[in-house]
Amino acid sequence: MNSSEFRRRGKEMVDYVANYLEGIEGRQVYPDVEPGYLRPLIPAAAPQEPDTFEDIINDIEKIIMPGVTHWHSPYFFAYFPTASSYPAMLADMLCGAIGCIGFSWAASPACTELETVMMDWLGKMLELPEAFLAVKAGEGGGVIQGSASEATLMALLAARTKVIHRLQAESPELTQAAIMENLVAYSSDQVAATLGTTTCCSFDNLLEVGPICNKEDLWLHIDAAYAGSAFICPEFRHLLNGVEFADSFNFNPHKWLLVNFDCSAMWVKKRADLANAFRLDPTYLKHSHQDSGFITDYRHWQIPLGRRFRSLKMWFVFRMYGVKGLQAYIRKHVQLSHEFESLVRQDPRFEICAEVTLGLVCFRLKGSNKVNEALLQRINNAKKIHLVPCHLRDKFVLRFAICSRTVESVHVQVAWEHIKEMAADVLQAERK
Amino acid sequence: MNSSEFRRRGKEMVDYVANYLEGIEGRQVYPDVEPGYLRPLIPAAAPQEPDTFEDIINDIEKIIMPGVTHWHSPYFFAYFPTASSYPAMLADMLCGAIGCIGFSWAASPACTELETVMMDWLGKMLELPEAFLAVKAGEGGGVIQGSASEATLMALLAARTKVIHRLQAESPELTQAAIMENLVAYSSDQVAATLGTTTCCSFDNLLEVGPICNKEDLWLHIDAAYAGSAFICPEFRHLLNGVEFADSFNFNPHKWLLVNFDCSAMWVKKRADLANAFRLDPTYLKHSHQDSGFITDYRHWQIPLGRRFRSLKMWFVFRMYGVKGLQAYIRKHVQLSHEFESLVRQDPRFEICAEVTLGLVCFRLKGSNKVNEALLQRINNAKKIHLVPCHLRDKFVLRFAICSRTVESVHVQVAWEHIKEMAADVLQAERK
Repeated sequence: MNSSEFRRRGKEMVDYVANYLEGIEGRQVYPDVEPGYLRPLIPAAAPQEPDTFEDIINDIEKIIMPGVTHWHSPYFFAYFPTASSYPAMLADMLCGAIGCIGFSWAASPACTELETVMMDWLGKMLELPEAFLAVKAGEGGGVIQGSASEATLMALLAARTKVIHRLQAESPELTQAAIMENLVAYSSDQVAATLGTTTCCSFDNLLEVGPICNKEDLWLHIDAAYAGSAFICPEFRHLLNGVEFADSFNFNPHKWLLVNFDCSAMWVKKRADLANAFRLDPTYLKHSHQDSGFITDYRHWQIPLGRRFRSLKMWFVFRMYGVKGLQAYIRKHVQLSHEFESLVRQDPRFEICAEVTLGLVCFRLKGSNKVNEALLQRINNAKKIHLVPCHLRDKFVLRFAICSRTVESVHVQVAWEHIKEMAADVLQAERK
Repeated sequence: MNSSEFRRRGKEMVDYVANYLEGIEGRQVYPDVEPGYLRPLIPAAAPQEPDTFEDIINDIEKIIMPGVTHWHSPYFFAYFPTASSYPAMLADMLCGAIGCIGFSWAASPACTELETVMMDWLGKMLELPEAFLAVKAGEGGGVIQGSASEATLMALLAARTKVIHRLQAESPELTQAAIMENLVAYSSDQVAATLGTTTCCSFDNLLEVGPICNKEDLWLHIDAAYAGSAFICPEFRHLLNGVEFADSFNFNPHKWLLVNFDCSAMWVKKRADLANAFRLDPTYLKHSHQDSGFITDYRHWQIPLGRRFRSLKMWFVFRMYGVKGLQAYIRKHVQLSHEFESLVRQDPRFEICAEVTLGLVCFRLKGSNKVNEALLQRINNAKKIHLVPCHLRDKFVLRFAICSRTVESVHVQVAWEHIKEMAADVLQAERK
């Protein structure tokens, strides 16, 4: 495919994408396929000679779409949101074209520098303590990770390396293994210190945990994967109080801040803690500026060596929405979850199972786990909306998460009417 | 931005991308900027009100491009290639629009199933032993990782978990830490067993290493990050002989097989080895099919929980090039590296420092490291082409890697004339 064919096919793909997202409400949110559906639909091996683009684009509707769970349907209320916005998609097109690998400053200076500045922009939106920012040429700074899991792993490994170095400095006879046998990572039953757990969006009290960690010289990592986006709104910022006690902090703009996956934002107070744990300096990656003290070589901050130009997505989204637009987006989702909460509360057959703080409502039928399992199964089999469950203490609970960028009050109302119908069926079946 | 504005802006972006790649030869391959160039060019914080798309697109040429190292310029001969092709970019647009997160089969069946089948297609192209494929519902299978580093880490952790379980089964009194203190990971001075090292594209002899690993019950992981793509050509397949002894194998289609970053292909003979080390089953990720034995839930195969629909890129590229087109692409690059090699060999001032097998030529001026360092510095300061060095034993060596999708004989010739000129200058300066 040469560039003139790309011009034509690229524009067709732009229309396909716009059509898909405009029409997504009309697609069944959860697919009908059974495991193994795809293999018989395509050849057993790659073609020797090229297929045409028409063949491929036709196969998207025939082979791919029947097996897609439509995460951006306004009837998708499962898991947590994954971000999707047009500005982020435009930025990703540019990212693909530049196609640089930003493992060092020299490998593409713009890739590294825009990331550092975007992480400062985002840190300021959250009113993070200045110690986490790179702006003042201080010791802190931010980095884009692929996921919150990777951020947690980085924090764990950095903390482990730091404590091993400290103990070996005090007692040089100690082996790494002897130290590691005695290391303890504390966590709650939902993981790290968490703001906005996946199960029920609960919050650890950083003002209690933080001072203890500081006093005992423990590394405190805070994971706010979902909830972090909400902290750009002043009315939710108090949930982040205590972050000043942390060594590292992470949340996922790719969940709730309109920056398409992957973009997990991680800040540390001492960038040297990461770089010391992961430094990698073969000759072919060295460059003339690297020892200047000025330079960020992000390969020392992460597990992979390679990295894409992901900060373009942040730049496009922050500029095209503006902070006020992003705040309005968060507020709309929170308002919709409260609307759903109040519908549930008006029905005496149901109960709310956890405080509704942001965009997640945990609810259930008053009664057995069995009846709630039956309700969820009936809802997900009908495939009009899509939900997933959780366990809170011993109770089986349904999670209703506001997810789609295009979800409106009408979708929440339709979903609730549907849930009530399914509940009536389940309760009737139970009485028989 | 609504969908009708996206239709307009998306098409403008398609043209921008095509213009950028058509005209990339005219851009200086390595930028002039100094560290810290970007921060003064943009505001200190995100705007409160939205910027316009025109503002942003104008800033790309003003702020971003001056700091980009153009990896896809035909004058870029540094590191190793990073893949770029139009079919992969089209697939990425679709991937962004579907925007599903494929951590489980149910989270988007097409995302999981296309990946499994594409990894089989690719495995067949490489003539991998059938034990690595999923096709026969056997114990093996493939997965897309983000990078070779992650694949290596997964292999290490899976191997460690496996040996700990084995030793604890034999001697239940052993603690994890006691076992870990005695575990050894063997590697050469270039890392795992490697096919095509980054330094000089050398190859470990799997037919020697493999049987020893099997006899001693050691996990053998093979990393062919760069070279693996070449094994789709029958004339290079012999370099992979001995893969049948391995437990896991990995290479990066995102380097040399026209599938844009990130797409690192990893196969294991026993998928249970990965899943046993990383199993994660909270209620909100359970689904009705997961215990059927049929199902792949890729979250157990990787560090992150979330994952994009990356197999679309493989599907588009494999179909639009065909196996023959991909082979032709590899062969062209290898031919160009041999062309450069023969130019170097014709000049008695230079020497070739390692066997040229694929697309990398390691060369240097006969003489001191100092003169070669001066040569590289002069080349990279002129910014007409871009190279990086390596150390082979104690020698400072220049690496000439065939990288760009659009590089032709003429670019290699121009680069060589330029290198000779720079060498003449360096040698003259030395004589003074």
